[in-house]
Amino acid sequence: MANLHQVELGKNVKMSALTANGKDLHDDRDKAEKEFKKLREEFADLQPKLYAEGKQKLLIVFQAMDAGGKDGTIRSITKGVNPQGVNVVSFKAPSKRELAHDFLWRVHHEVPGAGHITIFNRSHYEDVLVVRVENLAPQQVWEQRYDQINQFEKYLTDTGTRIVKFYLHIDKDEQRQRFQERLDAPEKHWKFSKLDLEKRKHWDQYMDAFDAVLERCNTKHAPWYVIPANQNWYRDLAVSRVIVQTLREMDCQYPEPEAGLENVVIVD
Amino acid sequence: MANLHQVELGKNVKMSALTANGKDLHDDRDKAEKEFKKLREEFADLQPKLYAEGKQKLLIVFQAMDAGGKDGTIRSITKGVNPQGVNVVSFKAPSKRELAHDFLWRVHHEVPGAGHITIFNRSHYEDVLVVRVENLAPQQVWEQRYDQINQFEKYLTDTGTRIVKFYLHIDKDEQRQRFQERLDAPEKHWKFSKLDLEKRKHWDQYMDAFDAVLERCNTKHAPWYVIPANQNWYRDLAVSRVIVQTLREMDCQYPEPEAGLENVVIVD
Repeated sequence: MANLHQVELGKNVKMSALTANGKDLHDDRDKAEKEFKKLREEFADLQPKLYAEGKQKLLIVFQAMDAGGKDGTIRSITKGVNPQGVNVVSFKAPSKRELAHDFLWRVHHEVPGAGHITIFNRSHYEDVLVVRVENLAPQQVWEQRYDQINQFEKYLTDTGTRIVKFYLHIDKDEQRQRFQERLDAPEKHWKFSKLDLEKRKHWDQYMDAFDAVLERCNTKHAPWYVIPANQNWYRDLAVSRVIVQTLREMDCQYPEPEAGLENVVIVD
Repeated sequence: MANLHQVELGKNVKMSALTANGKDLHDDRDKAEKEFKKLREEFADLQPKLYAEGKQKLLIVFQAMDAGGKDGTIRSITKGVNPQGVNVVSFKAPSKRELAHDFLWRVHHEVPGAGHITIFNRSHYEDVLVVRVENLAPQQVWEQRYDQINQFEKYLTDTGTRIVKFYLHIDKDEQRQRFQERLDAPEKHWKFSKLDLEKRKHWDQYMDAFDAVLERCNTKHAPWYVIPANQNWYRDLAVSRVIVQTLREMDCQYPEPEAGLENVVIVD
């Protein structure tokens, strides 16, 4: 089933052509919030089936600019799920030991096992985003990574992992407002760092780098969804629609009870 | 530099056509042992350079039938190297947690970091050898793995890992003698298990499975060496020739001393 925000395969989509305003696509916030709550309940119902079945794996990737809402989305959509079967992994700047290995090394180690959902808060895409924009590796190194990512994601799907990737799309003015809010509110101040302003200066280059990701790493087996994320209520709805639809398609089944238990009566 | 035992690329080599007798290729055991000891010293000299340089990575894979001499070879060639930079990983039957992941998951986690040598005692090749012969996975699963292995090994080399792969080739009669020795010698008895005899029954199928590996996973970036291994003295020599030659080609350099240290005299 096609989704409004799935980036069309083979299309040369530019971030600048995509709206960050969910409110332009949905005129009823109350209705959206009600639908989201229902979807979240369905997510909480489907996840234990995936876990009990113990066969399939689901990998959910979140990327966004700073203040794009990754943490908030993950908190919001996972409310009510059983943490035993859902794991959130945040990728920070790589450690010395991680840098001593290939860039997918630490990522591969964190992919979901059978029956599990893993949510990546940032991911291997940083290795063609921040690394590219901030020149953290030579071009001949990061240029190779698009194909390496595609092969890795293909391999994961061929070995039983379903992959969905979200870019939470806010515009530059929304980021300005969110940064200002963080600066002004004492309880949010810790979320702000001067480095955030450095990265903001390269906004256009980040958009170009993300255009390249959409052009080169948007595949049938691991599609990208660009979610308008200026309004949290729309963002949460749009993300959970995709996740729930994906879980429906995975069609997990509780395992059959052991044979011979049909007429057992526990008497004591 | 071509090596006698490197399997020619694109050649459809059969194990049955390759000799397991090193003594037929070398008529002077004493001379061979002397050369081996010199090579082992060179290995112990080159390894700290790789470590100090801290850039390149070397992965050495050993496969063999039971009693083929994997443990013995690894013990013999690594004598004298600094264990800080050399890591031996033995892959056993996968755990439940490992089986919940793709077959390369546990392998990727163990690949060498920059400056390190990792030696695999068995490897991801078990997933197209024992798994294939003993029907531990359906054919459509293991059939995919040859390409997946090639892509994985290509990716590792593209990200800075040199790979060499050894098959220690003993013939069926040599295995019989070694099994018998294990059964007869109390201190070797623990190395023998009834399962070994089960696997021995499938000798020909294992050879066929290995022929398929040589046909499909012998690549420029990750070549196979089939080492005649009936005689340990020849086996050790042949293996260390390849490893030392590989390290010579890697041409590791001690890092330049920090600038400004030229005229420093430590007076106290």
